[in-house]
Amino acid sequence: MSDPTSTGLFDPLFSTDAMRAIFSDRTRLQRMLDFEAALARAEARAGVIPDSAISAIESGCRAELFDLEALARAVGLAGNSAIPMVKALTALVAKSDPEAGRYVHWGATSQDAMDTGLVLQIRDALAIFERDLESLCGVLARLTEDHKATPLAGRTWLQQAPPVTLGLKAAGWLSASERHRARLHELRSRVLVVQLGGAAGTLAALGEHGLQVAENLAEDLHLALPDLPWHSHRDRVAETATTLGLLVGTLGKIARDVSLLMQTEVGEAFEPAEAGKGGSSTMPHKRNPVGCAAVLSAAIRVPALVSVMLAAMVQEHERGMGNWHAEWETLPEICRLASGALAQIHHMLGGLEVDPARMRRNLELTRGLVLAEAVTMALARHIGRMPAHHLIQQASRQATEQARHLREVLSDEPQVTAHLSADELQRLFDPANYTGLAEAFAERALAARADALAHGSGESG
Amino acid sequence: MSDPTSTGLFDPLFSTDAMRAIFSDRTRLQRMLDFEAALARAEARAGVIPDSAISAIESGCRAELFDLEALARAVGLAGNSAIPMVKALTALVAKSDPEAGRYVHWGATSQDAMDTGLVLQIRDALAIFERDLESLCGVLARLTEDHKATPLAGRTWLQQAPPVTLGLKAAGWLSASERHRARLHELRSRVLVVQLGGAAGTLAALGEHGLQVAENLAEDLHLALPDLPWHSHRDRVAETATTLGLLVGTLGKIARDVSLLMQTEVGEAFEPAEAGKGGSSTMPHKRNPVGCAAVLSAAIRVPALVSVMLAAMVQEHERGMGNWHAEWETLPEICRLASGALAQIHHMLGGLEVDPARMRRNLELTRGLVLAEAVTMALARHIGRMPAHHLIQQASRQATEQARHLREVLSDEPQVTAHLSADELQRLFDPANYTGLAEAFAERALAARADALAHGSGESG
Amino acid sequence: MSDPTSTGLFDPLFSTDAMRAIFSDRTRLQRMLDFEAALARAEARAGVIPDSAISAIESGCRAELFDLEALARAVGLAGNSAIPMVKALTALVAKSDPEAGRYVHWGATSQDAMDTGLVLQIRDALAIFERDLESLCGVLARLTEDHKATPLAGRTWLQQAPPVTLGLKAAGWLSASERHRARLHELRSRVLVVQLGGAAGTLAALGEHGLQVAENLAEDLHLALPDLPWHSHRDRVAETATTLGLLVGTLGKIARDVSLLMQTEVGEAFEPAEAGKGGSSTMPHKRNPVGCAAVLSAAIRVPALVSVMLAAMVQEHERGMGNWHAEWETLPEICRLASGALAQIHHMLGGLEVDPARMRRNLELTRGLVLAEAVTMALARHIGRMPAHHLIQQASRQATEQARHLREVLSDEPQVTAHLSADELQRLFDPANYTGLAEAFAERALAARADALAHGSGESG
Amino acid sequence: MSDPTSTGLFDPLFSTDAMRAIFSDRTRLQRMLDFEAALARAEARAGVIPDSAISAIESGCRAELFDLEALARAVGLAGNSAIPMVKALTALVAKSDPEAGRYVHWGATSQDAMDTGLVLQIRDALAIFERDLESLCGVLARLTEDHKATPLAGRTWLQQAPPVTLGLKAAGWLSASERHRARLHELRSRVLVVQLGGAAGTLAALGEHGLQVAENLAEDLHLALPDLPWHSHRDRVAETATTLGLLVGTLGKIARDVSLLMQTEVGEAFEPAEAGKGGSSTMPHKRNPVGCAAVLSAAIRVPALVSVMLAAMVQEHERGMGNWHAEWETLPEICRLASGALAQIHHMLGGLEVDPARMRRNLELTRGLVLAEAVTMALARHIGRMPAHHLIQQASRQATEQARHLREVLSDEPQVTAHLSADELQRLFDPANYTGLAEAFAERALAARADALAHGSGESG
Repeated sequence: MSDPTSTGLFDPLFSTDAMRAIFSDRTRLQRMLDFEAALARAEARAGVIPDSAISAIESGCRAELFDLEALARAVGLAGNSAIPMVKALTALVAKSDPEAGRYVHWGATSQDAMDTGLVLQIRDALAIFERDLESLCGVLARLTEDHKATPLAGRTWLQQAPPVTLGLKAAGWLSASERHRARLHELRSRVLVVQLGGAAGTLAALGEHGLQVAENLAEDLHLALPDLPWHSHRDRVAETATTLGLLVGTLGKIARDVSLLMQTEVGEAFEPAEAGKGGSSTMPHKRNPVGCAAVLSAAIRVPALVSVMLAAMVQEHERGMGNWHAEWETLPEICRLASGALAQIHHMLGGLEVDPARMRRNLELTRGLVLAEAVTMALARHIGRMPAHHLIQQASRQATEQARHLREVLSDEPQVTAHLSADELQRLFDPANYTGLAEAFAERALAARADALAHGSGESG
Repeated sequence: MSDPTSTGLFDPLFSTDAMRAIFSDRTRLQRMLDFEAALARAEARAGVIPDSAISAIESGCRAELFDLEALARAVGLAGNSAIPMVKALTALVAKSDPEAGRYVHWGATSQDAMDTGLVLQIRDALAIFERDLESLCGVLARLTEDHKATPLAGRTWLQQAPPVTLGLKAAGWLSASERHRARLHELRSRVLVVQLGGAAGTLAALGEHGLQVAENLAEDLHLALPDLPWHSHRDRVAETATTLGLLVGTLGKIARDVSLLMQTEVGEAFEPAEAGKGGSSTMPHKRNPVGCAAVLSAAIRVPALVSVMLAAMVQEHERGMGNWHAEWETLPEICRLASGALAQIHHMLGGLEVDPARMRRNLELTRGLVLAEAVTMALARHIGRMPAHHLIQQASRQATEQARHLREVLSDEPQVTAHLSADELQRLFDPANYTGLAEAFAERALAARADALAHGSGESG
Repeated sequence: MSDPTSTGLFDPLFSTDAMRAIFSDRTRLQRMLDFEAALARAEARAGVIPDSAISAIESGCRAELFDLEALARAVGLAGNSAIPMVKALTALVAKSDPEAGRYVHWGATSQDAMDTGLVLQIRDALAIFERDLESLCGVLARLTEDHKATPLAGRTWLQQAPPVTLGLKAAGWLSASERHRARLHELRSRVLVVQLGGAAGTLAALGEHGLQVAENLAEDLHLALPDLPWHSHRDRVAETATTLGLLVGTLGKIARDVSLLMQTEVGEAFEPAEAGKGGSSTMPHKRNPVGCAAVLSAAIRVPALVSVMLAAMVQEHERGMGNWHAEWETLPEICRLASGALAQIHHMLGGLEVDPARMRRNLELTRGLVLAEAVTMALARHIGRMPAHHLIQQASRQATEQARHLREVLSDEPQVTAHLSADELQRLFDPANYTGLAEAFAERALAARADALAHGSGESG
Repeated sequence: MSDPTSTGLFDPLFSTDAMRAIFSDRTRLQRMLDFEAALARAEARAGVIPDSAISAIESGCRAELFDLEALARAVGLAGNSAIPMVKALTALVAKSDPEAGRYVHWGATSQDAMDTGLVLQIRDALAIFERDLESLCGVLARLTEDHKATPLAGRTWLQQAPPVTLGLKAAGWLSASERHRARLHELRSRVLVVQLGGAAGTLAALGEHGLQVAENLAEDLHLALPDLPWHSHRDRVAETATTLGLLVGTLGKIARDVSLLMQTEVGEAFEPAEAGKGGSSTMPHKRNPVGCAAVLSAAIRVPALVSVMLAAMVQEHERGMGNWHAEWETLPEICRLASGALAQIHHMLGGLEVDPARMRRNLELTRGLVLAEAVTMALARHIGRMPAHHLIQQASRQATEQARHLREVLSDEPQVTAHLSADELQRLFDPANYTGLAEAFAERALAARADALAHGSGESG
């Protein structure tokens, strides 16, 4: 959780280096210092503090000048990370320029530094999420395109159902991912705002210059200026969590699908093979769905972490008591897990190994029963739906009991052969002929993505 | 949970009649039947089923014709609510028109009925949430306007801090509520879509007419047509949960604030008095914050329920195994609790009793210490920030030890009186003179709301 | 949630009639009334109220005399269920005996009635859980016994691993279930206690008789008397939730296993067939794992509900504000879901259809690779572990590439045939010969159960 | 999360050094290595591997010999921490003794190392929890004893109620803490067990020696031997989480109480003052409840983390897919947060500053209304309960309207003065005379603790 240069034992499995860097202690500190430097500039520009103070303050605002271990101990007493940071920064600045030291953190409160610093971290995180999600959408679009006509068994309740295509599956993943892109985009305008309120949120200490300083600060940091300080209104931050929670849910769904396809008894698609990946010490043949496991793990953990962010919204008056504190390690954890899951899915689908032949073979496992609907529908046109339904149901039972193919059973059935020829039956029992709109739906998803790309980062319906 | 005509023991406390009606078993059934009737019309229009079937099917699609108890028992065996509903509807229709009976639910799957029915319920729920939230925003705008200059103690960590105004507090509540309006608005385009996929999501049973039927159905129900069926992609539904989760977080924050203000030792604002409300059998004088308790209860429960919706997104292949089932009672519960919390806050703030005199008196509890910052800032202009800070800190300690007002202590201090006159000190210790931008921020929030109203249901920053 | 005579649409799927009856509004009311009647008896015995009041109070303490709908409306104003109940009871009693009316609820507070009533409900619920769990353990013991030597593929990461036996699987389920029995037993002494504290928990209103009344009350209700009232200490109640949460986790694990075994591509075990159960309208052959889905749904929902109970423990001073309220519908929901899941698993395993032949066939899917470890170990005795490991790994790769059985590949390998005869190889590749301690472990679990039964409801290690 | 020598920014606030050390990556690795060394000894003793291999394996089983960073990267590919650990250990051992290298991890699977290692960590954690909890109970017993007769306002719904004593409050905290001691004790027998199952849980690779090796291993590690391997049955581990979750709930309740007492407007008790603790940069007088905030933060986070552990129980067949992974960082986080919260509460209550005079003054805030019940009860003995109730209710209303003390209002009331003398009224309005059984209950809690101590770590009712 701490030192950006060390790597926790499970970090490479569950997160990415890039996201860990953003939420490392050192970067967290740096982003608060970025706030302090920008505040000094904003206040000098507004005439609140002397221009001469800027340079010394800026010079002190470098995280590498701070002793993180000492800071951590002080945080344990102070109750937040900004109080000791401001104290240390003030001492640091004062050493080189005592006059400038007086103007450190002028008129601000610790939450201003922590929250604006957090927003800067979130901005960096969003940039990565948007880039990686767009990249995943590219992979998904390719998969959709490549396999829009590759039939495999549909599966409902983990039971084989009429066939779908792998491209349709991918299109479903794609369509959801595009919606997540739209959500992340919408989030931006609400969360990328400066926080500056001073002790109680009125900026009273800045006298008549408060609003000007806030405007300058927002401009300096390229953040929006909100109507009013939002320190104890956490919906902006909590929405970051819920948006990522939704994303992780979709990633978990993809991982579930892939891991089920990888089962020994199914064997239709596989995470890419990689040296050292997913091997088992005792079972040389095994290729474990390591990426899926990491993503599924995130899909179990993140919902609960999101619930912490929502529960923590009930913050007292002008500053929360414990509930604000509950966010500090939770939102970074959500970002880390979401980034890791996104990277795993991207890697996994980018190199997905597909076995269309096995898909075909598996479609034969029920001896035609998954295509019962196809025949029912065809027969219904001749003898009506209910009679067709009953006839096929009975034949299906017979096929099951006698372990025969439904097609064979039906070939012996005069009511069927009266209306459907052997060729027609053969055609009806080819799964590729009963994938309905799978291809059309896949193309609609691709078209929607093209449309979204054409219209900015965009909305999708 | 069940009969719309009965009221559970805690229903009036935690929810609203209107929301319970939307999610009652009978309405749930009716919305599925609305889907079936619309499907029949859509299919007839596309030439898939005969026009003549419409009327008998429509006649059967009335919830009051069904035995809910029997249906519930059948659900226990079938594993979802649509299978027995379709069976019962088919029997019902067939009784009056055997031919039409064949075309009930033609080409659709049970999840199509359940999900589209759910979307219709969500549409009704959103209408109520948007109406009630807009109404709450109106109340909040009034409160902001009325009290933008009513000072009370700011409170951080539950300790008194420099003063704010009640209008600023209300503006914070308002600004967050406006953001929730924007979120609900954005949700609409993603969740108000039809679901129609057939057995595995390919609409194969509808042959070449699938897309036309889907378009007709969407048009008939005034819902959008999505790129492709979304049955096992639950982000649309889960986002409904997260959006309400965020809303409930803000409502909880308001309730926390009000309940703290109502404390015997604070006594600054009160839920409206009402016959039979909040009375205590043993303590005749008490007025319990019943509304706050109900809302805070929702703010504890809803985050966990939202986590269920997120965790349930990991749905297998073309239909979830248990995770889909996990949604069925959870999303309605979220809607019920959110609607109840919203109604309670609306009622509570609409009739909020405010005691500005007590607010003033409480501001004197620290004998001027909450205004130490004001004096520090004033003094800093004369003797520099650090000296001013140290002087006031020392005087504050003295004031605490001697139980004297800080103003008095400072009046004895030559370093202070050299720069600040008695009148100035008096002025500095008037909380109303140290509310900074409280009023300006309140007005910004009101302006932002006016702007949002002028531009549709709209975005807020 | 409400009327004990009505059944919610999903009630039969997710819960049991018995548990719903215990937590119906009417029973909830009755249990509070049981408290009131017992309190009157306890107080009369202690000389606090006249003996003559008992009979009229007892007569009024029948839930059927109350208007639940009116009560619910009053709860919405009063903020809890006991205040209006006491008011209505007092009126009822006073009508028949004005003198007795004065002594209703004497010296008690509403939480006393609600909490003691809840404990009475929990006692009834525990009795059902213990009975049903014991019954499940019986089923599991039979399954363990019957199938201790029935081999099937072990599966790790959803990949086939060396064989286990179905009896070993069942023994794992059994052993966990026995631990849950021990946990439920330990819970009893902590949760089955009376709550009687009066307005603030001091029983001050009862003067010198307080303790005597509390003792009488506990004796009357066959509950233990705790050290002191526990109204705002919710660990007793929350532990009920966590204990059931653990139980549901195990039930979910069983359901996951069974649902995976039921997959079309696996087909090794099945929920019992039943008229109307798990059928699909479009796929006549399907037998959906309806019971598994219901249990898995509970396993997603209950953890979040448990988190509500834990989060709600932070109750303010002598009575919680909202957090107490958060329990009222949550703990009953946990009980309902846990009881439903337990019933589903009991039913499912009681009639589990097992296909040992398919298990055998599936063990051949990897063409001997799942038994690579067996051969490695046998060979290691002759040529050392690492050489054996490498040799088998290479042969496994060859077998995979050439789609040959590992046994055949090894038969061509002189390093192998030098040490292992064809017969030996044949024997090594029989899964039944490589189930290790599966049978011994199964017997240990059975012995532990026998031991636990012999020593009371007992501890298990 | 990682390097035991570094300290994360919030670690000292939210956790303890001791618990972080137990769950550091290095210790986690060491505990797995402890398993490997013990396994080698156990196998040699059973004659499975040569005695000569022990020493080289033991020499390699020191965490400081491993490159944690490299291990972490390998974990990212392997999907768990034991696979690369075994590989690295094997290489290490083989370097010094190639023969011994062959016997590393003989017959075991990676989960055996990870789970047994985890159990060893849990054992160390439990020792700390039990020690610290016992120490807290000592502090609580002192507080109970010292303040059993110190009156302060009872508070229900955050409104003043009849008086309690601070000792009664502490006794409630104590009684709950003693129950947690009992729960931790009961947990021991279920969780402190060895895990050894081999590839699929049958120990097949150990042939006829499996059980003997397992027994030896358990003996060597001073752990119990379970009926059978429990790798995919996580109730043992999840119960550790729920037990700590219950504990944290109580700690959160204490923190809530203390933080409310510390409010500026209440000011009855305070966290101990400490250099650098809880100071505010802008408000020199403030003493922020830093310890309370840290604990309340844990009380929000831990319930959700517990829900992860419960949700993760649904592990597939013989090894979980993602759900097992979800435990790896979650249980340590629970332990860290629980230990931090426990330490904070211990420190806070050990030095709690109490202001009995302020408690008395606050009891006067309602001008006698909190003692209305006392007078009602006294009066009821003369004129009956209902008349007394109505009379006092009316007088209370009058007192409120006229801002007079209830005692004065009643002194003007002939119906009162006819039965109660001025002295009696004076006595009735002394809060110290209306604390009922507060002292008796406090003594019962102390007696129960003494009893528990006398009977081992023991059960409490």
